[in-house]
Amino acid sequence: MEISVRKAEAIDMPKVLALIKELAIFEKEPDAVKISVQDLQNHGYGATPMFTCFIAEVASNIVGAALVYFRFSTWVGPTVHLEDLIVQESMRRKGIGEKLYAAVIRYGHLQGVKRIEWNVIDWNEGAIKFYENSGAKVLSDWSVVQMDETGISNYIEKLD
Amino acid sequence: MEISVRKAEAIDMPKVLALIKELAIFEKEPDAVKISVQDLQNHGYGATPMFTCFIAEVASNIVGAALVYFRFSTWVGPTVHLEDLIVQESMRRKGIGEKLYAAVIRYGHLQGVKRIEWNVIDWNEGAIKFYENSGAKVLSDWSVVQMDETGISNYIEKLD
Repeated sequence: MEISVRKAEAIDMPKVLALIKELAIFEKEPDAVKISVQDLQNHGYGATPMFTCFIAEVASNIVGAALVYFRFSTWVGPTVHLEDLIVQESMRRKGIGEKLYAAVIRYGHLQGVKRIEWNVIDWNEGAIKFYENSGAKVLSDWSVVQMDETGISNYIEKLD
Repeated sequence: MEISVRKAEAIDMPKVLALIKELAIFEKEPDAVKISVQDLQNHGYGATPMFTCFIAEVASNIVGAALVYFRFSTWVGPTVHLEDLIVQESMRRKGIGEKLYAAVIRYGHLQGVKRIEWNVIDWNEGAIKFYENSGAKVLSDWSVVQMDETGISNYIEKLD
């Protein structure tokens, strides 16, 4: 089975969104995906793209995607953040995720960043083992904090 | 004591870097800061700025800084990430951090993002309580993963 990885174009976004939605369903959050194909096309392929997307293809079908963007560390400067790495459920355990992962690390290397980072959910032991074997470090003493739209509005109301 | 918060200009970066270094020393990582004033000026004030920096001033002295940039969520689209919020040690517990935090949330609100996010170290109970009281959620089941420069090089070598 030949797996090829390339940068996605705007025209590939419907399939990328389908993968994003498939993952959200798998994570039991089917309603969490608020963005549209248009959003992905506008934000990824406008004058100042907010992300770069890689896709994996098998027999010309898109079966996986990885979405990355730059962040900025006050210690090491520009870094690459891997937001999502998704492989279509029926195509897992065939090395597609590894190919996408390699494309992401190569991209970070080519961009000359001093760090590539992402988040992992604690119970995903397989992923954690894979990341550690590849040379990444899991900083289990750091947690992610999020304020959502409602939280932002409530906070702003109290300020005024 | 009057605290004013404004967007930083390129000319403010020497003092911002001093704050970054002060924090690194406090965190017992004095050699972790690899970037220069020039890096901050180039990446923050070029044609496509990689971050926005807010600074807090007391009597025209810069005593705190918060550095933010956009990220892109595959669920909710553009988000604001708070990379660092620093208050000069001698000026802590005077409400400066809260003013900077409010400036960041206002900024996210004005930019129309559906999420503002950042990381927190698990033992910083004071910060966690403050964030939760403000309406943010600590996702303690998610960890940060990082591959550093050496990890990237080693991984690439094995690929070739």
